[in-house]
Amino acid sequence: MMISLMRTKISLIAQKHFYTSVVAPQIADEVSKLLDLKAQLGEENAVQHKLILKTPKGTRDYNPEHMSLRLGVLEKIIAVFKRHGAETIDTPVFELKDVLTGKYGEDSKLIYDLKDQGGEILALRYDLTVPFARYLAMGKISSIKRYHIAKVYRRDNPATTKGRYREFYQCDFDIAGQYDPMLPDAECIRVVSEALESLDLGKFIIKLNHRSLLDAVFATCGVPQDKFRTICSSVDKLDKTPWEEVKKEMVEEKGLNEETADKIWNYVSKSGGVDLIADLRQDENLMKQKSAVFGLDSMELLLKYCTIYKVINKIVFDLSLARGLDYYTGVIYEAILIGDDVGVGSVAGGGRYDNLVGMFDSKKKTVPCVGVSLGVERIFSVLEAKMANDGVKIRTTEIQVFVASAQKNLHEERMRLLSDLWDAGIKAEQAYKKNAKLLAQLQHCEEYGIPLAIILGEGELARGEVTLREVTTRKEFPIPRDQLIDEIRKRLQN
Amino acid sequence: MMISLMRTKISLIAQKHFYTSVVAPQIADEVSKLLDLKAQLGEENAVQHKLILKTPKGTRDYNPEHMSLRLGVLEKIIAVFKRHGAETIDTPVFELKDVLTGKYGEDSKLIYDLKDQGGEILALRYDLTVPFARYLAMGKISSIKRYHIAKVYRRDNPATTKGRYREFYQCDFDIAGQYDPMLPDAECIRVVSEALESLDLGKFIIKLNHRSLLDAVFATCGVPQDKFRTICSSVDKLDKTPWEEVKKEMVEEKGLNEETADKIWNYVSKSGGVDLIADLRQDENLMKQKSAVFGLDSMELLLKYCTIYKVINKIVFDLSLARGLDYYTGVIYEAILIGDDVGVGSVAGGGRYDNLVGMFDSKKKTVPCVGVSLGVERIFSVLEAKMANDGVKIRTTEIQVFVASAQKNLHEERMRLLSDLWDAGIKAEQAYKKNAKLLAQLQHCEEYGIPLAIILGEGELARGEVTLREVTTRKEFPIPRDQLIDEIRKRLQN
Repeated sequence: MMISLMRTKISLIAQKHFYTSVVAPQIADEVSKLLDLKAQLGEENAVQHKLILKTPKGTRDYNPEHMSLRLGVLEKIIAVFKRHGAETIDTPVFELKDVLTGKYGEDSKLIYDLKDQGGEILALRYDLTVPFARYLAMGKISSIKRYHIAKVYRRDNPATTKGRYREFYQCDFDIAGQYDPMLPDAECIRVVSEALESLDLGKFIIKLNHRSLLDAVFATCGVPQDKFRTICSSVDKLDKTPWEEVKKEMVEEKGLNEETADKIWNYVSKSGGVDLIADLRQDENLMKQKSAVFGLDSMELLLKYCTIYKVINKIVFDLSLARGLDYYTGVIYEAILIGDDVGVGSVAGGGRYDNLVGMFDSKKKTVPCVGVSLGVERIFSVLEAKMANDGVKIRTTEIQVFVASAQKNLHEERMRLLSDLWDAGIKAEQAYKKNAKLLAQLQHCEEYGIPLAIILGEGELARGEVTLREVTTRKEFPIPRDQLIDEIRKRLQN
Repeated sequence: MMISLMRTKISLIAQKHFYTSVVAPQIADEVSKLLDLKAQLGEENAVQHKLILKTPKGTRDYNPEHMSLRLGVLEKIIAVFKRHGAETIDTPVFELKDVLTGKYGEDSKLIYDLKDQGGEILALRYDLTVPFARYLAMGKISSIKRYHIAKVYRRDNPATTKGRYREFYQCDFDIAGQYDPMLPDAECIRVVSEALESLDLGKFIIKLNHRSLLDAVFATCGVPQDKFRTICSSVDKLDKTPWEEVKKEMVEEKGLNEETADKIWNYVSKSGGVDLIADLRQDENLMKQKSAVFGLDSMELLLKYCTIYKVINKIVFDLSLARGLDYYTGVIYEAILIGDDVGVGSVAGGGRYDNLVGMFDSKKKTVPCVGVSLGVERIFSVLEAKMANDGVKIRTTEIQVFVASAQKNLHEERMRLLSDLWDAGIKAEQAYKKNAKLLAQLQHCEEYGIPLAIILGEGELARGEVTLREVTTRKEFPIPRDQLIDEIRKRLQN
């Protein structure tokens, strides 16, 4: 049977048209029946044997501690985005496969496809930028400033020990619209800077470069135009790989001659600030390229705006910054932590992509865009490590008052009190056991960092009182029942 | 070739073991090569033809207005969950297919499968309850009170015109743990009530019933035990379908005799409160069933707790409430809007499911659970319709101050001012054009509901002043530049 299938396959290659129109649907049908049969067998085995209890490869659950940290980080970042007037949007977790095709180069193989269950061919989103471009084109939206925080999916083989996963958050801020040069670009840099500062991650720098300038460098050094993007990918590796290795790749794998490679190194090893712009303007060979003039003018304006936005002291103009993705067309940037936590590296990156939206428009009408993506997963890892190191415990609930009882059969009294507390908007809970031990109830308060406990006892209730306990100090105060809500409010305000 | 495949298939049925161990991997391999070939052909065709610009069937984008409403609703619901001490967790968007198998009965056909790209067999989550049970079993967690708000996926054919989609939010609150009867159950009802009240959706009722009581009714009426679940499904339809039709289904499709069906109707047409419990206790036939005694005792306790929690006036004990899902084992409930918006129906539902976690444990060790799922998609629809009706415009940004200029070439002055505003934590923006028209800038403020605008002019700048404009009243005030931040803060507080 295998041989018969293979023969058919060989003949198919010579008869594509016949295949697609006549044979394919029949094969697909038979194949689907066979796969169903196989799946049934598989399922029977699985049910008979024991179920493996795990999350899919490269994914994980987030417990309340993880979520508390994550939501706290995202809240701070969203506050920055809102300070700059961003709206938010959402798009489906999957797209028509065609929407993603041809956008990610070699990485397309990492896209998760959905099974063809009869209907459209779908795939999980790989990033938030391509869906954003599709959204703009589809809605004929010519300008928007938006953020989008959502999970994306890559069938990669990441080292989950290093906190890299197949399902992970992206956190993007983008400005789309036909605007004056560098005004939105500079604000993106300011946004990155504000976000990283608000998270208290330690020192960082933001590297800047411009795709036009890289193109000018490649042209000046004699790289053939059709190799610009692949050589750009090689340059992109310089943050992790020594020049000797990158050069070897350029020469041996990508067919550059050694002299050209060395010339490239002569440029991309430079970094600085306004001084570097002045230096490069002296380079007559480089300045013969129109894109060099444009790139340097752009960088000069951007640095001026960065000075006004008070972020210039965090900026490094770095000619080796290349960024992997094909779609960038202008300024590119990357933020890097430079504190003790070496190895974390890039925590934000982005750039201008003026042509992506046009790829979705039938008349090629485009919308210029610039944006930044915060590497929140890395930021989560850094902060988790920091808190573990400092022995900080994260609260996972916001409960303000725990209602306990000191004797048996007071659960209805507890419930009456709870009902009043909730009515007053106070965050309160109890044990779901009628007769929980007092010690267990108080331990729960300490474990969850609950500031106040109310303890009900028969004697106190008879006197119209309850006991209010400060959990950290373990001090207790008798409070008249009818003054309790006011007393709690007063204490919570302090 | 087709014939050869079919022959092999027939022989396979007789030789399952040989198939799974020897033939299947080879077939799978060949099949996958063929499918790849087919996919390649498909892709080539797609690229040649034009790209269809749409979101996948049954999904949609959410624009800033949608998101603003949705996030506002979720924020209110989360506030209620937090008031009751819930933590939050997250699980991956896909699970091992085996985790979902055998949990949803007939609806399993609606599960989205991922393509087998070599590796695990995966499927998108269908709800949040099964992943929650998997999470508890996998982590050996014996108690937690958690909420989970996330999207789930069903390959249904919903009427998207009615706001039903294939990708939609679920919003679940569950209490897991071995606790005393009805304490967590009553709190879930209180949570639903608080959430619906906080959203100001109009009047609602919460229907209650108990699975044990339904079982007792079925047994009393003479339904064979193996038909309990399927007859339960029929009863579940009574909220939308007249009794005559449901009876027809019971008799003609499910093989009940007419007398039995009529006896069922005699019970399930009853609803009430504590009075109904007393009535049913008089029913000697029913009370012969142990599960009737247990169910009525449980309902009595629950109604007592609902009285203490001040939600009794919203409760209806309704014997026709059945709920579709198989996994419920105790109390079940459903909240229904009863205002003008007829046709919206159920906006929350849930119940106790004590055996689900045990399905994931190799030693069948279980964790009793009770929970509620808020139908947030319906709630979004109701509120969207309401706002459209009232002509209310939702703000999509939180910008407090817009920085405008009245003459040309003042963009750097604007940027300097913006930088100071952001430093002060004030939410501020400008036009990304150097020389935007003043009218356009002021129109933007009105359109986006921005309360304050600063207008820069050369004359004012020379005097060390700027103009502060109240957008709604269009009143303008000259303010010294160095008092501006204080002045803005003061005005924003009012």
